[in-house]
Amino acid sequence: MEVFIEPIGRLMNEFSKLPGVGKKTAQRYAYRVINMSEGEARAFAEAILNVKKKVRYCKVCGNFTEEEECEICKTRDKSVICVVKEPKDVIALEKLHEYKGVYHVLHGVIDPMNGVSPNDIRIRELLGRIGEGNVKEVIMATNPDVEGEATAMYIAKLLKPLGVTVTRLAHGIPIGSELEYTDEVTLARALLDRKQI
Amino acid sequence: MEVFIEPIGRLMNEFSKLPGVGKKTAQRYAYRVINMSEGEARAFAEAILNVKKKVRYCKVCGNFTEEEECEICKTRDKSVICVVKEPKDVIALEKLHEYKGVYHVLHGVIDPMNGVSPNDIRIRELLGRIGEGNVKEVIMATNPDVEGEATAMYIAKLLKPLGVTVTRLAHGIPIGSELEYTDEVTLARALLDRKQI
Repeated sequence: MEVFIEPIGRLMNEFSKLPGVGKKTAQRYAYRVINMSEGEARAFAEAILNVKKKVRYCKVCGNFTEEEECEICKTRDKSVICVVKEPKDVIALEKLHEYKGVYHVLHGVIDPMNGVSPNDIRIRELLGRIGEGNVKEVIMATNPDVEGEATAMYIAKLLKPLGVTVTRLAHGIPIGSELEYTDEVTLARALLDRKQI
Repeated sequence: MEVFIEPIGRLMNEFSKLPGVGKKTAQRYAYRVINMSEGEARAFAEAILNVKKKVRYCKVCGNFTEEEECEICKTRDKSVICVVKEPKDVIALEKLHEYKGVYHVLHGVIDPMNGVSPNDIRIRELLGRIGEGNVKEVIMATNPDVEGEATAMYIAKLLKPLGVTVTRLAHGIPIGSELEYTDEVTLARALLDRKQI
């Protein structure tokens, strides 16, 4: 980046750390910052520091929160727990405004190829929550990939002896898509999981 | 953004001010920041403040600089001035490592539809530099769009009586492209500007 003066090159370098940001995009972002007012730039910098300072993990569910326990854990139906891989999955589900239960964020999935064992994700904490009683259903909402499925199965096996119902999000043909363009694995799954109408 | 807690929503809002960044991208960026170390986040915030504090415009050419006069103005051949619309155009030309002259950044082009008159861009400063003598050639390197062409023509007319050679970057078929896929305006221009071989 020798064609850029040091402060611009440095800011471009910082922007390049964001996911999917290449050199050209980093340059556009840096130039936008140069054209910001002093106040705007300060607000931007402060929002970055602020998020690091204030955001922590809920001690119960592991989702992002500003307090010890998150708003969802404090106010919602604790008899249903939805287990997800990451905080962003909570956002995806919350956007539906459908689900009334609480969450459990694993912060990862079991992935032996990458050295992630059951002990490395928040499974122990999930067992603790169920041990407290009152949990009727655990919905496994990990991604429908190999690691997500394996993690769901592993947790289901652990929980069944505890007398709690374990469910899994349905897999099948996405609404609005066509049979012809549905991939084979999904189609086979949709056939297998067919329901009586 | 009510599904996000305040510090995250606020940072997403800041990221959304960057060009081309929508809600989804802003979320990915914000989550990346949350996963940064304290030190990384501080370096990021400081790079933003630093660029606002240190970057200013060269008093001669109007390009970005940390000092009063930029490195290019201080060290290069002042007899040739390349006139561009924006600082990013200087970067594009500098990357070639071909051009040995200096620049003049207009910070805009004449655009009556959007209320930009010749007085709103750095044309007066350009005349001042030519008035000092020693300038042999001015290369007009504004974009090949309507405003860029009009600005180039306007400045050329102003400069010709001053006895300075005014040139324009060549337009034509891009190297490596095919005739068949060249747009009509470019092809017509390439025909008109044909050169003897």
